[in-house]
Amino acid sequence: MKTFTVEAEIMPKRGVNDPQGESVLSGLKLLGFDGASKVRVGKLIRFLVSAESIDAARAEATEMCEKLLANPVIEEYELNIAEA
Amino acid sequence: MKTFTVEAEIMPKRGVNDPQGESVLSGLKLLGFDGASKVRVGKLIRFLVSAESIDAARAEATEMCEKLLANPVIEEYELNIAEA
Repeated sequence: MKTFTVEAEIMPKRGVNDPQGESVLSGLKLLGFDGASKVRVGKLIRFLVSAESIDAARAEATEMCEKLLANPVIEEYELNIAEA
Repeated sequence: MKTFTVEAEIMPKRGVNDPQGESVLSGLKLLGFDGASKVRVGKLIRFLVSAESIDAARAEATEMCEKLLANPVIEEYELNIAEA
């Protein structure tokens, strides 16, 4: 078994309402950051996975995203995996 | 003025308690993902910034992180900036 680092980037899908992003944008404007726009807030989840190969690690991380980490109805995710 | 895409990766600092990460790890174990460990949950914030140069965009995004996006006491952040 090898150990892999997994980074899951989980963002609201394009077109899906993002109240957190709107709230952050309002905060930035209030602080005078007038050049900011199109704020989207997502999650960044980093963890380790033990697996036989990088392909097995990717398959397991994908299943984790589908079942727990992301909500596939409103969120999309991208995985970055490397051997630790 | 040019437009830049900014990606702010905000994670709890090493050594800082991460209850969200612990909760995600418990969930993964409950679902049978025994190979997972060391889960850390952070935020991924993407937005656009209008600025004269990439250095000006980076300076502005850094100030945004310090003042609003991150809590520098318990979180660390990394910025990825590119011309849009």
